[in-house]
Amino acid sequence: MLKPETITSAANPLLKDVRRAMERGGLSPQGWCVAETPHLLAEALRSRCRVKVVLAAESAKLPRLPGVRIVVVPDALLQKVSGTETSPGVMALVEPPEWNEEQLFQGRTLGIVLDGLQDPGNAGTILRAAEAFGATGAIFLKGTASPFNPKTLRASAGSLFRVPFLYGMDPALALAAFERNRVKLYAAVPSSACPVADADLTVPCAFIIGNEARGVSRELRAAAQEVSISTVGVESLNAAVAAGILLYEARRQRNLRA
Amino acid sequence: MLKPETITSAANPLLKDVRRAMERGGLSPQGWCVAETPHLLAEALRSRCRVKVVLAAESAKLPRLPGVRIVVVPDALLQKVSGTETSPGVMALVEPPEWNEEQLFQGRTLGIVLDGLQDPGNAGTILRAAEAFGATGAIFLKGTASPFNPKTLRASAGSLFRVPFLYGMDPALALAAFERNRVKLYAAVPSSACPVADADLTVPCAFIIGNEARGVSRELRAAAQEVSISTVGVESLNAAVAAGILLYEARRQRNLRA
Repeated sequence: MLKPETITSAANPLLKDVRRAMERGGLSPQGWCVAETPHLLAEALRSRCRVKVVLAAESAKLPRLPGVRIVVVPDALLQKVSGTETSPGVMALVEPPEWNEEQLFQGRTLGIVLDGLQDPGNAGTILRAAEAFGATGAIFLKGTASPFNPKTLRASAGSLFRVPFLYGMDPALALAAFERNRVKLYAAVPSSACPVADADLTVPCAFIIGNEARGVSRELRAAAQEVSISTVGVESLNAAVAAGILLYEARRQRNLRA
Repeated sequence: MLKPETITSAANPLLKDVRRAMERGGLSPQGWCVAETPHLLAEALRSRCRVKVVLAAESAKLPRLPGVRIVVVPDALLQKVSGTETSPGVMALVEPPEWNEEQLFQGRTLGIVLDGLQDPGNAGTILRAAEAFGATGAIFLKGTASPFNPKTLRASAGSLFRVPFLYGMDPALALAAFERNRVKLYAAVPSSACPVADADLTVPCAFIIGNEARGVSRELRAAAQEVSISTVGVESLNAAVAAGILLYEARRQRNLRA
């Protein structure tokens, strides 16, 4: 473990960087992502992501972190930059993973396309479910919450460190990539002629999850087969719940016919 | 439509009540719940809940609301009491629905028990899924997020106005009620001997969803059969996603064997 340094001023450049990342809901000015809890720090380490520096509250108990730069910060100061009501006492700056298109389409593709989803909590929760059901990768289309929003990372519970993803992608480029890789697209819509249990999810495929209010965009719906989860009484399901069910159903079908 | 009144002072008792409800994450001092969006107001009306008063921003466009008391508030003032970053311009005070035990067990029971779940967003999202998959009712055990937290109501997208629920209930009393009504209990755990697809969900049953960090309490696990959703790579799923999948699976099984 490197000798811990100490910060006592809110004007310290490192704290300013973290605050900027929280405010803009994305990477820090240096291009690092903010992992806000001891759990996320552990997830970054087990996912072999490079941890650049750990900001630790004076009162926090840290695990052994060989070779990691540690900076100790007064509790009140760390609370100030934290995005949570009660700071969990640890904020790590982590090098974001980088992926290429090939890595998203390995094996029998099971993909997720986020099309204008706004809530970083939903986006992260979907990535967590994607990993849980063996998805091969995810695409954050342009206009979607940032994968590097600290809230996205927190909701992913660390899955964002492991599931291959591309982001800020133009819809036309994404469609071309799916065509090139012969992946069938299913657009999740509140009601359609095709309940998801009747769709063949054993083929290489990806689910498009749309904006919380407007749903999947017309451009993408036109390039996909619409599927829906049969429901009663509600206009729609929460986007993350819908994505989780689609992924669960795909895994169920693939296991049955394995 | 009654003649709209106007409020201009933050010290107005009505605004204070709303602020108190937001702060305490529950009912207003008079026992009303706060519905924060035009959508939730519409949901309250279509669910035949009594709308006590609607606070509307000066710039808001209201639908016709025969017989409803309307109070117009300057935009900036309404923003101040709003729980959202951008106030949706309407806050309604609604009489909370009241249910009794019988109403939770009507027909072939499909129930949800929230056991110490902390996040009102998760709780509301679960109620939304519960309605979507035809659940007969929900129980918020003691120590769970309040069903009347404005955030719970928002995440439920209005389902809280329609799904029968009891709250603040003692676990022992809840267990007795399930036994009395011959309802089988399934406790959702991250891993178990029984994948949910192998459990018989066609019998009258209810799913226990535990605290986000600690899971289902020992007391309730002991009274239930443990079931899990088969996953890879992650420690667990988000609680609302897990509940959504369990309810979806129950509906799938019941439709197959109907």
